[in-house]
Amino acid sequence: MKYKEQLKIIPLGGLEQIGMNITAIEYKDSIIVIDCGLAFPDEEMLGIDLVIPDITYLKENQAKVKGLVITHGHEDHIGAIPYALKELNMPIYATKLTMGLIENKLQEHNLIRTTKRKVVKHGQSVNLGCFRIEFIKTNHSISDAAALAIYTPEGILVHTGDFKIDYTPVFGDAIDLGRFAELGKKGVLALMCDSTNVEREGYTSSERNVGKTLQHLFDEYKHHRIIVATFASNVDRVQQIINCAYQTGKKVIVEGRSMVTTISTAAELGYIQIPDNTLIEIEQMRNYKPEQIVLITTGSQGETMAALSRMAASTHRKVSIMPDDVIIFSSHPIPGNEKAVTKVMNELAKKGASVIYQDTHVSGHACQEEIKLIYTLTKPQYAIPVHGEYHHLKKHRDLAIEMGIPKENVIILQSGDVLAISKKQAKIIDKVPAGGIMVDGLGVGDVGNIVLRDRQLLSQNGLFIVVMTLDQYTGMLLAGPDIVSRGFVYVRESEDLMDEAKQVVIESLDKCRTKNISDWNKIKMSVKDDLGSFIWKRMKRSPMILPIIMEV
Amino acid sequence: MKYKEQLKIIPLGGLEQIGMNITAIEYKDSIIVIDCGLAFPDEEMLGIDLVIPDITYLKENQAKVKGLVITHGHEDHIGAIPYALKELNMPIYATKLTMGLIENKLQEHNLIRTTKRKVVKHGQSVNLGCFRIEFIKTNHSISDAAALAIYTPEGILVHTGDFKIDYTPVFGDAIDLGRFAELGKKGVLALMCDSTNVEREGYTSSERNVGKTLQHLFDEYKHHRIIVATFASNVDRVQQIINCAYQTGKKVIVEGRSMVTTISTAAELGYIQIPDNTLIEIEQMRNYKPEQIVLITTGSQGETMAALSRMAASTHRKVSIMPDDVIIFSSHPIPGNEKAVTKVMNELAKKGASVIYQDTHVSGHACQEEIKLIYTLTKPQYAIPVHGEYHHLKKHRDLAIEMGIPKENVIILQSGDVLAISKKQAKIIDKVPAGGIMVDGLGVGDVGNIVLRDRQLLSQNGLFIVVMTLDQYTGMLLAGPDIVSRGFVYVRESEDLMDEAKQVVIESLDKCRTKNISDWNKIKMSVKDDLGSFIWKRMKRSPMILPIIMEV
Repeated sequence: MKYKEQLKIIPLGGLEQIGMNITAIEYKDSIIVIDCGLAFPDEEMLGIDLVIPDITYLKENQAKVKGLVITHGHEDHIGAIPYALKELNMPIYATKLTMGLIENKLQEHNLIRTTKRKVVKHGQSVNLGCFRIEFIKTNHSISDAAALAIYTPEGILVHTGDFKIDYTPVFGDAIDLGRFAELGKKGVLALMCDSTNVEREGYTSSERNVGKTLQHLFDEYKHHRIIVATFASNVDRVQQIINCAYQTGKKVIVEGRSMVTTISTAAELGYIQIPDNTLIEIEQMRNYKPEQIVLITTGSQGETMAALSRMAASTHRKVSIMPDDVIIFSSHPIPGNEKAVTKVMNELAKKGASVIYQDTHVSGHACQEEIKLIYTLTKPQYAIPVHGEYHHLKKHRDLAIEMGIPKENVIILQSGDVLAISKKQAKIIDKVPAGGIMVDGLGVGDVGNIVLRDRQLLSQNGLFIVVMTLDQYTGMLLAGPDIVSRGFVYVRESEDLMDEAKQVVIESLDKCRTKNISDWNKIKMSVKDDLGSFIWKRMKRSPMILPIIMEV
Repeated sequence: MKYKEQLKIIPLGGLEQIGMNITAIEYKDSIIVIDCGLAFPDEEMLGIDLVIPDITYLKENQAKVKGLVITHGHEDHIGAIPYALKELNMPIYATKLTMGLIENKLQEHNLIRTTKRKVVKHGQSVNLGCFRIEFIKTNHSISDAAALAIYTPEGILVHTGDFKIDYTPVFGDAIDLGRFAELGKKGVLALMCDSTNVEREGYTSSERNVGKTLQHLFDEYKHHRIIVATFASNVDRVQQIINCAYQTGKKVIVEGRSMVTTISTAAELGYIQIPDNTLIEIEQMRNYKPEQIVLITTGSQGETMAALSRMAASTHRKVSIMPDDVIIFSSHPIPGNEKAVTKVMNELAKKGASVIYQDTHVSGHACQEEIKLIYTLTKPQYAIPVHGEYHHLKKHRDLAIEMGIPKENVIILQSGDVLAISKKQAKIIDKVPAGGIMVDGLGVGDVGNIVLRDRQLLSQNGLFIVVMTLDQYTGMLLAGPDIVSRGFVYVRESEDLMDEAKQVVIESLDKCRTKNISDWNKIKMSVKDDLGSFIWKRMKRSPMILPIIMEV
């Protein structure tokens, strides 16, 4: 079985379902898994809380799975870990802060005792089955991000994770470009490189530049209360906000559950330095003048339940927006969130607050010149673009070709593709189950396309329920038809319509009796059709119609 | 009654509901209406087709309404005209192309014969009641845009409409800055100026610069079929695409209903020049090689039913995307459409087409320096920012103050505010009905908040219907409970749940009987509560629960 002896790269998510990053690397009896993230639901996934990857393939090959290695602590790389561990126990390898954030999740899901974990330092390696995995220092919008060099019997794979090149990072070292160069000298079989910003020319700005802008703003607004909204996970950003606050003599309040959790973990593990007497509890706010206060808060994406959104909507129990407040959005809206963010901004502006959002954020992802640098250093034989929408991957392909990778050696994979790769050739040889599983409340995978289609229909047109009680022997109408509608029109203003609709149902039933139709499904269909065309003619609308027959 | 004798400015929409531009100007027995646009529904307005302004105030003052003057032909300025005319007949004044687009709508709604219309040239004026309204040439992303100078007994109001300053427009003249300067010399009481781009520094680029980029792209891809998606109403853009096609010897096909309508109207009225033998019908496409073809199409905003989206989804009957196609998005996504646009781009890229969207669009709205120029020329006593989200209006306020308008003379209005204005003072003296009326199918205003809330709930959690037939005398359960669910879970996989739910209902009914509860509403409430907490405990979900009692 030659098939079994090949080195295989199998993305199980992250390529069509943006965010849900998970990739299996397989050779003979060994599988390692890189990242295990969740995705947030698309607009069409009505009512869905989150989406996790399908790990059927890993479960089927359970005995081979040696461990889960994580590049960094963002939700789209660690968020599905608890769900995966419930199906498949495997040890986890990650850098310190990343592991801290994972452990918060394990604790929540009662998995902390049963999960083997090992913290790895940048530069260190772990051996898992026939693989050795080295963690390489990179920069990103969360501290402690790592690229991975995966030493396999067929050669070295380099996976960048999400990264940027920051020569002047706020915390820790710049990306270990020297190591990428050394790997290039050794010979890299394939480079799996971040595509998120591949359509942007030039370089991504240093995190430190945001600090400068923030410092200017803090100087300009020193007589105001300042509220800064940012990503909870951007520990370096929070550090810079705290520095600005400290330098302008302001006290810092951290608000929003995920912000509090992340900052606590980062502070405990030494990834954030908070000067003494700087942090205060929100309850102490009343002891200070507004201009002595900086609030660091969640809600930079306009999320309805986040702290800033509640402040904007006047539903936050402890913070009321005041006309003199200055609110800084230290973030860009993630695509899809633009309208929600604008709504929050408008609400804040209406309360008289000043809203600032320009030049207050930098991306965590590499632009074209940075990506080119990584190609130049690693000189891979194959390029496998990762992280990004399909049109990003395609653009990345052009860039890789421009960098001298032969056209046929640039491979765009889809989730579930099994890529067999060696120095001789790379080929998609199989397809395994992959894609998103929807989580709704406690249900994992119990909401599927039919349910979503119904939710979609209900959301657009509402519902018309027709209940009829029929005599089980004669089929005569004993009670009803009663009509209940929801999400359709104001019922009080449409009593005539309801009366006419009842008449339509009665006529439909009569028609069935005349034709001697006694099959309930046929009766229901007749009612549905007749009522449907009546409503369409009258209102040009198509509510869901549910005929229900009771038998007495 | 001093109140009656004042000059009043009354925005009836467009300030909270972006897009729905309509403003009344009133003095004694005269009212004129500026624009009458529609808005597209917010994300929360599930199932709503469009939103039109509430013109109750105009209907109540019907005798005073002298006419409707229109600044330009975009939907957010003309889209609600047919709806308004059905409630309130009034003559319409607009420039030629604008009137052509309005007439298309009147024809559709059978209003063309009953509506008085007058085409006005730039530089001309019309007298309406005690007002004289002069149409002033401006530039915008649609031809024939006008600013309005409204001569009132209290002074001159200048309303810019949507505008930019284009020194090198594709069609016609540059904005008539000289006239703005003359008005400034005469003395302008209030300037109502476009705020859309007030947060952007510098100047908006000329439309002609897009033409240069397009020409480069057409040269680069001369051996490919080119598909350009843009706004149907951007006649100058379409002209430039046609020019590029002509110069590279390609034939042009126009695709998408609104695109065909607009181009026909523009061509008829002389706003677009199509060289002979350039335009072909889509049916003729087969007679040409792909590289001889340019398709100009709707769908630049990712609208599901637009031509490009159907091509991307392989549901277009006449056009199949081919791997060599080059698709140019000559547009920016309107906030809220980003995800839909990205989805279409990905689908196109997956079919192998090249997708281009950078530097292929310029805005139609003035940036900071242009707005400042208008202030410098018109030197208004009052500034009333218009067109834009609230945070734009607020930023515009800062800019106006910077331009020397006294703080107290910059007035941010909300829809329905009645601003009494004179050289002595400006003051909000009243509030009239204003805001959006939702249109769903043939229904205007019959969907309100309760219906939307139901649609929202149904869309997130689905529905649980419980039907019970009770004996009308004894209250005994004769049939059921039957449970029907939609949008909740796969029913087949949850038969146990359904059985348990039935048991919960039966127990709830027993409880009621034990307590001698015979009031149906109370029985329904009991069933709803018990079933609700059962489902929450089991699944952490809250579907809508509808208990229905039939009586025999």
